[in-house]
Amino acid sequence: MKELGIGIIGTGFMGKAHAFAYRAALAAFPDIPVPRLEMIADVNEALAARAAHQYGFARATSDWRALVNDPRIDVVSITTPNTLHKEMALAAIAAGKHVHCEKPLSPTLADSAAMVAAAEKAGAVTQVGFNYIKNPLLKQARDMIAAGELGEITGFRGIHAEDYMHDPESPYTWRIDPVGGPGVIADLGSHIIGMARFLLGSIAQVSADVRTVVKSRPVARGAAERKEVLVDDVARILVDFGRGCGGTIEANWIATGRKMQLGFEISGDKGSLVFTQERLNELLFYRAGGDSRNNGYVKIEAGPQHPPYGEFCIAGGHQLGFNDLKTIEMGEFLRAIGRGEKATPDFREAYEIQKVVEAAIASSQRREWVKLA
Amino acid sequence: MKELGIGIIGTGFMGKAHAFAYRAALAAFPDIPVPRLEMIADVNEALAARAAHQYGFARATSDWRALVNDPRIDVVSITTPNTLHKEMALAAIAAGKHVHCEKPLSPTLADSAAMVAAAEKAGAVTQVGFNYIKNPLLKQARDMIAAGELGEITGFRGIHAEDYMHDPESPYTWRIDPVGGPGVIADLGSHIIGMARFLLGSIAQVSADVRTVVKSRPVARGAAERKEVLVDDVARILVDFGRGCGGTIEANWIATGRKMQLGFEISGDKGSLVFTQERLNELLFYRAGGDSRNNGYVKIEAGPQHPPYGEFCIAGGHQLGFNDLKTIEMGEFLRAIGRGEKATPDFREAYEIQKVVEAAIASSQRREWVKLA
Amino acid sequence: MKELGIGIIGTGFMGKAHAFAYRAALAAFPDIPVPRLEMIADVNEALAARAAHQYGFARATSDWRALVNDPRIDVVSITTPNTLHKEMALAAIAAGKHVHCEKPLSPTLADSAAMVAAAEKAGAVTQVGFNYIKNPLLKQARDMIAAGELGEITGFRGIHAEDYMHDPESPYTWRIDPVGGPGVIADLGSHIIGMARFLLGSIAQVSADVRTVVKSRPVARGAAERKEVLVDDVARILVDFGRGCGGTIEANWIATGRKMQLGFEISGDKGSLVFTQERLNELLFYRAGGDSRNNGYVKIEAGPQHPPYGEFCIAGGHQLGFNDLKTIEMGEFLRAIGRGEKATPDFREAYEIQKVVEAAIASSQRREWVKLA
Amino acid sequence: MKELGIGIIGTGFMGKAHAFAYRAALAAFPDIPVPRLEMIADVNEALAARAAHQYGFARATSDWRALVNDPRIDVVSITTPNTLHKEMALAAIAAGKHVHCEKPLSPTLADSAAMVAAAEKAGAVTQVGFNYIKNPLLKQARDMIAAGELGEITGFRGIHAEDYMHDPESPYTWRIDPVGGPGVIADLGSHIIGMARFLLGSIAQVSADVRTVVKSRPVARGAAERKEVLVDDVARILVDFGRGCGGTIEANWIATGRKMQLGFEISGDKGSLVFTQERLNELLFYRAGGDSRNNGYVKIEAGPQHPPYGEFCIAGGHQLGFNDLKTIEMGEFLRAIGRGEKATPDFREAYEIQKVVEAAIASSQRREWVKLA
Repeated sequence: MKELGIGIIGTGFMGKAHAFAYRAALAAFPDIPVPRLEMIADVNEALAARAAHQYGFARATSDWRALVNDPRIDVVSITTPNTLHKEMALAAIAAGKHVHCEKPLSPTLADSAAMVAAAEKAGAVTQVGFNYIKNPLLKQARDMIAAGELGEITGFRGIHAEDYMHDPESPYTWRIDPVGGPGVIADLGSHIIGMARFLLGSIAQVSADVRTVVKSRPVARGAAERKEVLVDDVARILVDFGRGCGGTIEANWIATGRKMQLGFEISGDKGSLVFTQERLNELLFYRAGGDSRNNGYVKIEAGPQHPPYGEFCIAGGHQLGFNDLKTIEMGEFLRAIGRGEKATPDFREAYEIQKVVEAAIASSQRREWVKLA
Repeated sequence: MKELGIGIIGTGFMGKAHAFAYRAALAAFPDIPVPRLEMIADVNEALAARAAHQYGFARATSDWRALVNDPRIDVVSITTPNTLHKEMALAAIAAGKHVHCEKPLSPTLADSAAMVAAAEKAGAVTQVGFNYIKNPLLKQARDMIAAGELGEITGFRGIHAEDYMHDPESPYTWRIDPVGGPGVIADLGSHIIGMARFLLGSIAQVSADVRTVVKSRPVARGAAERKEVLVDDVARILVDFGRGCGGTIEANWIATGRKMQLGFEISGDKGSLVFTQERLNELLFYRAGGDSRNNGYVKIEAGPQHPPYGEFCIAGGHQLGFNDLKTIEMGEFLRAIGRGEKATPDFREAYEIQKVVEAAIASSQRREWVKLA
Repeated sequence: MKELGIGIIGTGFMGKAHAFAYRAALAAFPDIPVPRLEMIADVNEALAARAAHQYGFARATSDWRALVNDPRIDVVSITTPNTLHKEMALAAIAAGKHVHCEKPLSPTLADSAAMVAAAEKAGAVTQVGFNYIKNPLLKQARDMIAAGELGEITGFRGIHAEDYMHDPESPYTWRIDPVGGPGVIADLGSHIIGMARFLLGSIAQVSADVRTVVKSRPVARGAAERKEVLVDDVARILVDFGRGCGGTIEANWIATGRKMQLGFEISGDKGSLVFTQERLNELLFYRAGGDSRNNGYVKIEAGPQHPPYGEFCIAGGHQLGFNDLKTIEMGEFLRAIGRGEKATPDFREAYEIQKVVEAAIASSQRREWVKLA
Repeated sequence: MKELGIGIIGTGFMGKAHAFAYRAALAAFPDIPVPRLEMIADVNEALAARAAHQYGFARATSDWRALVNDPRIDVVSITTPNTLHKEMALAAIAAGKHVHCEKPLSPTLADSAAMVAAAEKAGAVTQVGFNYIKNPLLKQARDMIAAGELGEITGFRGIHAEDYMHDPESPYTWRIDPVGGPGVIADLGSHIIGMARFLLGSIAQVSADVRTVVKSRPVARGAAERKEVLVDDVARILVDFGRGCGGTIEANWIATGRKMQLGFEISGDKGSLVFTQERLNELLFYRAGGDSRNNGYVKIEAGPQHPPYGEFCIAGGHQLGFNDLKTIEMGEFLRAIGRGEKATPDFREAYEIQKVVEAAIASSQRREWVKLA
């Protein structure tokens, strides 16, 4: 199997997560192209150099364009703030690279559309970092739904709530600068919307209440001066799936106490599934019928019977962590490149997710249901 | 303390629950008037007689009017199908009785308004069977919210989902006859709407998706002939509380696997509370701040520190059950009568809950937000 | 069905629990003799009178002998401290009554043996208050074990831990006066030993570590003077069941944080069961085999499919509480009397439980395994 | 920081886990020596070569002696069956290497003593693979205990139960060949004994019941011929810690349904901790006192406030998996080597754990308490 030269732009939270994943991907997946850890870029050259050393990449640069255009690089991971995604992705695609971009794809639907168009025209393999759906138990969930084990789906309740913005005194930061696009509905909402689509398919229409709860924040920790907040803190969405069932989706970054309440409950007329990322190695399954005296929710614990768990550990009960999900993601990306296939979720899927985000915002502003094209 | 003669109309699920509660109320609450178990009415005279014997009531009748007009009866419990509530309640009020009526109050808002008007004009003490809010831990929750322990409330997520109608082949019954009013939004939705109001106060506006999922049901178990279903199976509601925070409410009787998913998550900027009736003796509380190394959700277990738990058991950990909640309800009702005070939730509160139900249905039909007067 | 005149001795924690139960028993169980609430005795006459009024008993007395000898009384409930059980039970039996006695039966095995002998000679129906095994889910557990659904049983892990004595500064009380018999091994240990026997049958031998952890306690809250504690705080027991499997049992009243950690895990070669009284309406069941992708522990929720739950509520999910278990206990007692059958657990079973307690204490003192005769 | 050449012997379950860990260690821990992935040995040369490629090691060999003696190798990881540990470890130590050895250290206490002696004489840094105690939440637990947050410790309940041997028809394998030493008490028991020592210190004496439950197993899947099993399936141990508190420990590999029930409950007079590896990112903490109305078990969720979680992910809620624990283990090992310090748990600690194992077996055979020297 051929090698693929890897370049990562950004050395923050996600830059490190990508590095872990690229380092582990071949160890987990022998069938993928060998990732050659080639270069890391960060606007801060010292950070780039330190990261390259620590993560075992051959070279470092402060110039992301140098990385993007480097002939020894085949794959570019973009982990910078999303205001920068478009320019970097277009440059990488123009240079003939395959591109992984962290979510959300870009601040605006128009920019994202341009990214999709460029990637598809160039034939680049793309992927966007909706890592949570890489959980083996979510594949199991999707398989069960597709196989009809829940019967006809009758409802979806999805949520992604955390609390990193819950304190009204936590300062105004780049994260809530509207230049970066919407607030929580893009940051967390995109995850649960993507998960909903992964499991149940397209969303046909939405009616939403998207609101800013903390109206202003101090310009710095403890500062008296405050700045008006223009992005949303909570989004509550009524959804209508293309397949006919209804549901709700909530995105919330002021959900005090919640660190990773990303999950769902899916009901069908023959069964149901319940999941929360707070216990990512567990999936609850209820199957209607049978002996009511000993029926109930089954707690499925992740194990090698749920591929590709077994590539990380041959025994059940040991549990995967977040970085393992990221490794699965990168492994699938590299495999797709090796096979010349589409990776998932790709730029187009991220764009479809963003369309739901935009429709929800529009619905909230207009106080009416909005159909997705 | 004076005695109160008790009469119960109906001997089904709720009739029995009322009987248990009246039998236990004084044992739990020494400060209430003594309930004298006087009469039980059921259209089936044999059932009435059997119930009177079994529940320790002095007399039985097949004529509810006889009960309502009996001079030795001071308090009438109405546990019949809700199409009958209005006539019975008006007759009882006219006869000078205090009236407990099971929820929902009546099939239509107009009927409920008439019941409220009659009760208030007569000065009858009334109560409606929203039993779940009688849980000592819900009083604790309300106290904590009122005391500001969660800070400013920023969100509510409430649900009441069960699965007794999940099977499309379960037959058409009185429960889904539209003459009885709406479907799940009245049957279960009223509970969670009432709970939301109990905890956070009035709801100002709603946008809802109320739908019939199982379009037809067999006229009898296994029958080929089917009848069109006209009432709702699922209601999903965006809500805006009068206090300013937003939220969602779901009512669902086709939530396969769920037997009593009645609960909420309430977020404030300083803390949060999580509750489900599935574990009715537990309340989760998160308080922001403190030492992050050992902070997290606290599982509060019901005990005598949560009145009136201690009236049932002086030691924590022993747990209350559903019938105990019903006993608290009846105890409060009798105490209110004894003191000449209002009981809660009374007819008016039930009417307010029903207004939310009606607004949600209107919203769903008109596909727009609906304000509550 | 004939009536049975009921007398209760004692008006404390358990006296009240018995009163609740006798009041509710017929409402739950139409097939039992009608309990006529006849008399309550308490050494404090005012308390007795107040209790009789509150619990709906016809008469009160400060003289338990008057109660025991009253011709209108058929059934005597003894809920006093266990130093008094023997005298009261023997007197009641001598007077031809059926006797329910709270656990533990008496402070010493010899006294308990005398109680058993007297009861059996007189043909009295007896019962001892091991209420937790009256849980419908424990009947379900026992049925599943008996039916072989777990296969060959290979292990038992049982515990009853609470924390009411965890604070070394909580004062010396009657509860830890050795005149009342052993400490936690009798108070809580008897429950889990009884549960083990209920589920798996007799215990053949034990090796135990029974110890006093808090060596002295203040004579009163805040007092400087301390008194040496002579009874045990924790008992840890290796057990060997007569059926051949091994296990462990722990009794602990200094388990800080635990309010009702009474439970077990039972493994068989084909399945397992896990239960804790902390969630008394849930039973976990694992069945080996099947499709490993969706197998796991099933959370069985109590419902009418688990008799006699349905006598309390016809719908699942509503949950029983502690007082309901006590009602089941009393219902079974009265039914057994009506039918002239043995009730369970009777004096003899309590005596067998106490033999395990004594064997464990002996084992701990002699530092060796002790066989039960 | 200098480099360390790494060699791994064995390519099975643990060989792969070590490879993942060495690949990730520097990315997580910038302060450790750079691990240079040098060589992998497996008796099967093709497996060795494939592993070296997949895990990014420079060379492969079928001759473990070649690896052990290779001058470019500084650190040897031994992941072979434990019958081979001693010979390999002694050779590696003799060659001047630092040695990580998987648990249990060796089949016999005498062999382990020899390994300890050799390592200590040579000044080799050693570590043994008790990976679960590397969990950041267990460090938190230990810190809390050491800081007195639980007060005086009064009890320990520890268990490691799984079910990989629960089926009596699962065949006889190397795992239950007594040449490899004891059964579950060594395989799983060593983990929970090590965890007990990590948290509470030395164990002073034990009384145990160690038994073979499945007396024979088929020589192959489905074979009629069976072979007698000579190693233990379950060990139940009463323990007395050197600090004075008592407890129980269970090891069990026939605990049907359990995939990773490794955990404990520790009680102190001021608080308690509860942990299970089944939810390795959660730790329950109860602190006595405070307002009883809102006190209870706190669910601590792992986050960057629990070092070194933050080296894997800067945000809470994302969760570590098993391989991350292994990375922490290897990171600590390499750091200790770099600093010329002892790593933990080292050969001596593994030997101390094994002494407890042997004492328990002796106790069970002699049916008496056994003191540890």
